[in-house]
Amino acid sequence: MTISVLVLNGPNLNMLGKREPGVYGARTLAEIETETTAFGAGLGISVDFRQSNHEGMLVDWIHEALGRCRGIVINPGAYTHTSIALHDAIRAVALPTIEVHLSNVFARETFRHHSYISPAALGVICGFGPLGYQLALTALQPHVV
Amino acid sequence: MTISVLVLNGPNLNMLGKREPGVYGARTLAEIETETTAFGAGLGISVDFRQSNHEGMLVDWIHEALGRCRGIVINPGAYTHTSIALHDAIRAVALPTIEVHLSNVFARETFRHHSYISPAALGVICGFGPLGYQLALTALQPHVV
Amino acid sequence: MTISVLVLNGPNLNMLGKREPGVYGARTLAEIETETTAFGAGLGISVDFRQSNHEGMLVDWIHEALGRCRGIVINPGAYTHTSIALHDAIRAVALPTIEVHLSNVFARETFRHHSYISPAALGVICGFGPLGYQLALTALQPHVV
Amino acid sequence: MTISVLVLNGPNLNMLGKREPGVYGARTLAEIETETTAFGAGLGISVDFRQSNHEGMLVDWIHEALGRCRGIVINPGAYTHTSIALHDAIRAVALPTIEVHLSNVFARETFRHHSYISPAALGVICGFGPLGYQLALTALQPHVV
Amino acid sequence: MTISVLVLNGPNLNMLGKREPGVYGARTLAEIETETTAFGAGLGISVDFRQSNHEGMLVDWIHEALGRCRGIVINPGAYTHTSIALHDAIRAVALPTIEVHLSNVFARETFRHHSYISPAALGVICGFGPLGYQLALTALQPHVV
Amino acid sequence: MTISVLVLNGPNLNMLGKREPGVYGARTLAEIETETTAFGAGLGISVDFRQSNHEGMLVDWIHEALGRCRGIVINPGAYTHTSIALHDAIRAVALPTIEVHLSNVFARETFRHHSYISPAALGVICGFGPLGYQLALTALQPHVV
Amino acid sequence: MTISVLVLNGPNLNMLGKREPGVYGARTLAEIETETTAFGAGLGISVDFRQSNHEGMLVDWIHEALGRCRGIVINPGAYTHTSIALHDAIRAVALPTIEVHLSNVFARETFRHHSYISPAALGVICGFGPLGYQLALTALQPHVV
Amino acid sequence: MTISVLVLNGPNLNMLGKREPGVYGARTLAEIETETTAFGAGLGISVDFRQSNHEGMLVDWIHEALGRCRGIVINPGAYTHTSIALHDAIRAVALPTIEVHLSNVFARETFRHHSYISPAALGVICGFGPLGYQLALTALQPHVV
Amino acid sequence: MTISVLVLNGPNLNMLGKREPGVYGARTLAEIETETTAFGAGLGISVDFRQSNHEGMLVDWIHEALGRCRGIVINPGAYTHTSIALHDAIRAVALPTIEVHLSNVFARETFRHHSYISPAALGVICGFGPLGYQLALTALQPHVV
Amino acid sequence: MTISVLVLNGPNLNMLGKREPGVYGARTLAEIETETTAFGAGLGISVDFRQSNHEGMLVDWIHEALGRCRGIVINPGAYTHTSIALHDAIRAVALPTIEVHLSNVFARETFRHHSYISPAALGVICGFGPLGYQLALTALQPHVV
Amino acid sequence: MTISVLVLNGPNLNMLGKREPGVYGARTLAEIETETTAFGAGLGISVDFRQSNHEGMLVDWIHEALGRCRGIVINPGAYTHTSIALHDAIRAVALPTIEVHLSNVFARETFRHHSYISPAALGVICGFGPLGYQLALTALQPHVV
Amino acid sequence: MTISVLVLNGPNLNMLGKREPGVYGARTLAEIETETTAFGAGLGISVDFRQSNHEGMLVDWIHEALGRCRGIVINPGAYTHTSIALHDAIRAVALPTIEVHLSNVFARETFRHHSYISPAALGVICGFGPLGYQLALTALQPHVV
Repeated sequence: MTISVLVLNGPNLNMLGKREPGVYGARTLAEIETETTAFGAGLGISVDFRQSNHEGMLVDWIHEALGRCRGIVINPGAYTHTSIALHDAIRAVALPTIEVHLSNVFARETFRHHSYISPAALGVICGFGPLGYQLALTALQPHVV
Repeated sequence: MTISVLVLNGPNLNMLGKREPGVYGARTLAEIETETTAFGAGLGISVDFRQSNHEGMLVDWIHEALGRCRGIVINPGAYTHTSIALHDAIRAVALPTIEVHLSNVFARETFRHHSYISPAALGVICGFGPLGYQLALTALQPHVV
Repeated sequence: MTISVLVLNGPNLNMLGKREPGVYGARTLAEIETETTAFGAGLGISVDFRQSNHEGMLVDWIHEALGRCRGIVINPGAYTHTSIALHDAIRAVALPTIEVHLSNVFARETFRHHSYISPAALGVICGFGPLGYQLALTALQPHVV
Repeated sequence: MTISVLVLNGPNLNMLGKREPGVYGARTLAEIETETTAFGAGLGISVDFRQSNHEGMLVDWIHEALGRCRGIVINPGAYTHTSIALHDAIRAVALPTIEVHLSNVFARETFRHHSYISPAALGVICGFGPLGYQLALTALQPHVV
Repeated sequence: MTISVLVLNGPNLNMLGKREPGVYGARTLAEIETETTAFGAGLGISVDFRQSNHEGMLVDWIHEALGRCRGIVINPGAYTHTSIALHDAIRAVALPTIEVHLSNVFARETFRHHSYISPAALGVICGFGPLGYQLALTALQPHVV
Repeated sequence: MTISVLVLNGPNLNMLGKREPGVYGARTLAEIETETTAFGAGLGISVDFRQSNHEGMLVDWIHEALGRCRGIVINPGAYTHTSIALHDAIRAVALPTIEVHLSNVFARETFRHHSYISPAALGVICGFGPLGYQLALTALQPHVV
Repeated sequence: MTISVLVLNGPNLNMLGKREPGVYGARTLAEIETETTAFGAGLGISVDFRQSNHEGMLVDWIHEALGRCRGIVINPGAYTHTSIALHDAIRAVALPTIEVHLSNVFARETFRHHSYISPAALGVICGFGPLGYQLALTALQPHVV
Repeated sequence: MTISVLVLNGPNLNMLGKREPGVYGARTLAEIETETTAFGAGLGISVDFRQSNHEGMLVDWIHEALGRCRGIVINPGAYTHTSIALHDAIRAVALPTIEVHLSNVFARETFRHHSYISPAALGVICGFGPLGYQLALTALQPHVV
Repeated sequence: MTISVLVLNGPNLNMLGKREPGVYGARTLAEIETETTAFGAGLGISVDFRQSNHEGMLVDWIHEALGRCRGIVINPGAYTHTSIALHDAIRAVALPTIEVHLSNVFARETFRHHSYISPAALGVICGFGPLGYQLALTALQPHVV
Repeated sequence: MTISVLVLNGPNLNMLGKREPGVYGARTLAEIETETTAFGAGLGISVDFRQSNHEGMLVDWIHEALGRCRGIVINPGAYTHTSIALHDAIRAVALPTIEVHLSNVFARETFRHHSYISPAALGVICGFGPLGYQLALTALQPHVV
Repeated sequence: MTISVLVLNGPNLNMLGKREPGVYGARTLAEIETETTAFGAGLGISVDFRQSNHEGMLVDWIHEALGRCRGIVINPGAYTHTSIALHDAIRAVALPTIEVHLSNVFARETFRHHSYISPAALGVICGFGPLGYQLALTALQPHVV
Repeated sequence: MTISVLVLNGPNLNMLGKREPGVYGARTLAEIETETTAFGAGLGISVDFRQSNHEGMLVDWIHEALGRCRGIVINPGAYTHTSIALHDAIRAVALPTIEVHLSNVFARETFRHHSYISPAALGVICGFGPLGYQLALTALQPHVV
């Protein structure tokens, strides 16, 4: 049986490929979705890949995952550093959740060093570009089977 | 004549009953709405009870209350600690507003100790679960009649 | 059977009515005692209403409440922000305790925003003037019956 | 040929004229739109004037400006101080952007002194009321022609 | 007619002469009382000179000054740095009050650099030993006549 | 009748053109004076353009403007961040004053993010190079006519 | 000849045995007094064991120890963290003083990590329950004989 | 024989009478000079009264006082809070120095609460308007005779 | 050809299995070495797995990796938060380096939230137990081939 | 049967007697070892007394104590304030551990006021010179028998 | 050909020899000038040695060095810690600059530990008295030849 | 007679020439040793030049210098910012010690701006590359002869 995992992308990630390629790489989010979905399939995981610039929409989607998905991979983008609402949403649904960042946030501006998401997550993966989503699915697998 | 009061609920409060019952109790938001509305009726207050996970939607609703409601009870959830926009919205409509929290936020994580809403509010009630909404209506009454 | 509740008032509250009426209102503490006691009687609560400017006296009274009262309502005045002794006293007797402030302390000087009492209390009510004592008794009732 | 410039307004700016006129002036946002658009026309700039209380919507609109507009004037309202998502959006589209505030934010509450937008902007104009939008268009012109 | 002024001394000032003479001088508090009273008499001021190690007692005495004294000179000793209750008491009675310190507190430990009393006082005099009381009476005179 | 406006330039601005052109541009202060004066003439404003590296001289000139000028445009250079004396001088003469910076100070070192001048000014304009002086005169005009 | 030592106990220590036994142990203060006095006798030390919830009383007692006792053992309870008056009192009498805590304060809330008493004391002993008083007498002995 | 005392006034004090009379009073510096000089004469002190807006000039004058004056009264104005150079100058000449402020700086903006001058001074007098200079001369007298 | 990767383990990791299994799991470091080495072999990576409690030894080993290894995986244990020497060593050899933690350090004590290693690393993986080493090798592979 | 206790001494303690005798006393570490060992013998405790300047060596020795010793007395010297590795080592072996300092660290430089060791220890003893080791053994005894 | 180097001395350095000899030594600035000039001559460097108490004058002199000198040695005295203007002046002329202090500023008051000059300088030499100027010339030589 | 001076080098300095030449220059530590030793010989100083990555080893070597060397030159590398043990070691041996850094640490990351070594040193030299060692020997000479 296929296990469903929600892969959430926060603000500005829809601009991938068009945006500061020196920092975020040249691949578009659609390409990452394709790769991640294919990789998930190989693990028996059905990936539900979404993006929104709206904090409230991300919160809504996390709520809807309850009973529908077994786990969450989230790249919260800028909301990483400002959203207690996302922290609470992850706590509320109590699904195993992994935080992913494309860039190494700890090597960037100081305001990107603190995450409200991390204490609510199982673990964190950052700095490996699109590969990070696949690592996250691999790390999530033992928790969702 | 009935007086209308907007009772606003912020992010994740739709998960009540499903979410960390040790912290937030077992009652659902729908049950709280029923109780609060009934209690309001007893005070001659017509309660307009709403919830959204979207900061912008909460701001919109506060604006719409102008001319339609006499006061506001708000449980801003996580936006308590991060939303200057809600602070400004309450200041903008200048309606008497009471801030409510189900849990005692001062006994929780440090990042929940600061509220951007409080300085714009008439007063604050926290730690009494769903009863807090009824206390807020009682406290609001002399300001809206 | 009547339930006894200790209602404690901290420093300078004996000056109510004579002191900054713009901030604290025109009613005297004696008037508030009368109203609160009457309101408590309506709830089957016998109110033991006291005031002291001495931190140590307030600590003594909290200790003496053990075995004599079922709960505490405390308006700690300025000791709210400086007294770890009161925090410890409330923890020591482990009676359900509600913190009350007449004014909205969060809309005043920064040094009034932190409370040592709140983490030891059930909940907090502030900004509603003398009505706050009645709200506190209402909120305390389910914990003392 | 007319050059298009996006003029974005953040939360609560729709309340202008109704809201704290002592701080923000008596003119409505519609009046400011009319004046700004007329002034832009005089510079050969077609102004696309918008307002939203939704952080995500502002981010969406900044993205959509890519390829459609030559520059951005943004009055981010309260999101100035809390939105890293807007900072990232401006960086992502890499359009010349000017931050405008009606009031002198540096003469107001401390929490209004820090802007996440400024480091991503070309420059900042604050304190001049609706005239600020015209100054911004004037300052933007050499960068968009 | 003689004008009454309360001269209050806080904790440990009863030890003057016995305590760290290098910092506080060799004169006892009784000697200072005698000198200050005599000096006050020369100004037509009747000095009511008191000392207590109890914060609550100092608050009580400030309250009792209302209607009985025209002004206050206070050397709050260590309570300078920790007592919001004294700040509130001075505000409550609204009598002109001058803060005095024997030593130059700003040349001592950092925790003696902040005073909760100063913002509630007319002014501050420190570093001149017992003479400070006389300077305070001189400075108070125009406010109490 | 021509209205006189003092345009003050603080330390190191005499080095413009010779100094870090990547940050401050290639134009000299003399060229900026010429342009600004011409622009002012077009507005009916007589510009009194000065520069000094001496904080005290800048204070002196602000004092002398009283009764002689109708407003001030000031680029305080490094004194922006360290001079309370300039803040006080502006407050003392109570002339409408606009703060200008050539570069976007908020995109530079942290110690350039705080200004002692801003709270005493009408508004702030930064990041637009020499054009900033002209924008400032435009913004000042309604206040000096 | 017997040497007298003052053993002072601060606020809430009278509640020992009744209060949070998980933190403070099950023995009452009377039992600790008996044990400590007996232990002192074995060292030729006459223990004067006292407790007060009043900061001012503790200060009074320290003063009275001058000329009557040779040293002080003090468990200042919550006043450890808030009382500069006690710091000054110990400095004033200049008797060798040892600070004792029953629990390991450094393993508890952050606000218990700082002591105003320690810099005025000979040394500190914490974490060993009632035994701490005996260790303190042992450590004090060479300083009081 | 007459004793010479330097009375120094820092930036903006030349504006007294013209500047924020609500804060600083209506008397001009020339009037204060006259009064202070007359008062000094009564004490056998010849007052050398000066004012400058230049930090360097104030430092120069302090140096020149060496061998010429017996003490210094300084109202450093805004340099109080920013000038380590003045601190060092006072330390360098090692003349008894008293710091004076017309207003109660501790009741104003936070940036006026810290003084670099105080730790180098004998003592501080603030909040008593022009009378402060006379109190300072009185306090200085025993140190300069 | 096999590629060599240094896998470094910092202080206390030799205690794995014996130490707080609730936090770090029940597997020993030897077992993790076996699994990681086998996993590496599958990727064509020869793992050189080491542990030391000595900061200096870890620095030595990083230096020795230069010319011998193509990349580094490091679990710096407690030195994560205190060792600038390790930061410098990684920078000095300029080999691609990945930081791994068994537990989610961001969900533990505050002093474990800051890493001196992260800014010198390619990326960070934490919270996944021994699997983290395998994820790190996977992430390192594209950088070392 | 004899109980073994590890007594660990950190950096620079080998210099005792040669080093700042005003702060640390004149006795050498060898003399303290002799005294402590003799005292331990009297309690039925076999003292294993060691010193190292190497943080890693201290960690190694704590690990080796597991199964060999029943408790630890540690004077971590300067590593008190910088070593999370020692904190973790003590947590890892979970042996009852007492922290000792010869001097009263709270009366010295601020950077000596924080200890990473204390939260992992049973308790702390400081300020009593070599006697501290004996007090620690006495305090440890009930935990190791 | 002789190379010219500007040696600048900030506030209070003219008091050398007269001022706190325990901190600054007994030699006068004139003697240091003689020695430094002689030493410079030996290196083929013509020393232009100046002192001012005026921040603005120091800035002026740095500007004038452009085209006239090849490097700068600066002992900024108290302006080290407060002058961004000097920082900017050094950046503006872009001459190799060495910061010198007579005393070891890092062993003095905390407010002397931060330097605005250092990040704009080639390097820093402090603690060696007048010899520091000669070391600075030696260090500057390879940069000015 | 030759005077012996210990020249100590901390972590990663063995990588000189191989490590970030843009920051540290191209010369190896062996080359610097040769130059420094030769320079020392010219001053009659026998240089004992060592390097270790082990904090404990550096402490050991400082101890061993007692009675064997007359002074110390130390480039503590990264331990500058983290080692109180080195601070204490220098204090313990009480030999004149000079701190050297190749780069200007004040122009680098903030965490390199604080030194635990400086307050225990005679003085500091930084920013001059390998020449710094020679300047240090020159500065040390008057203290060791």
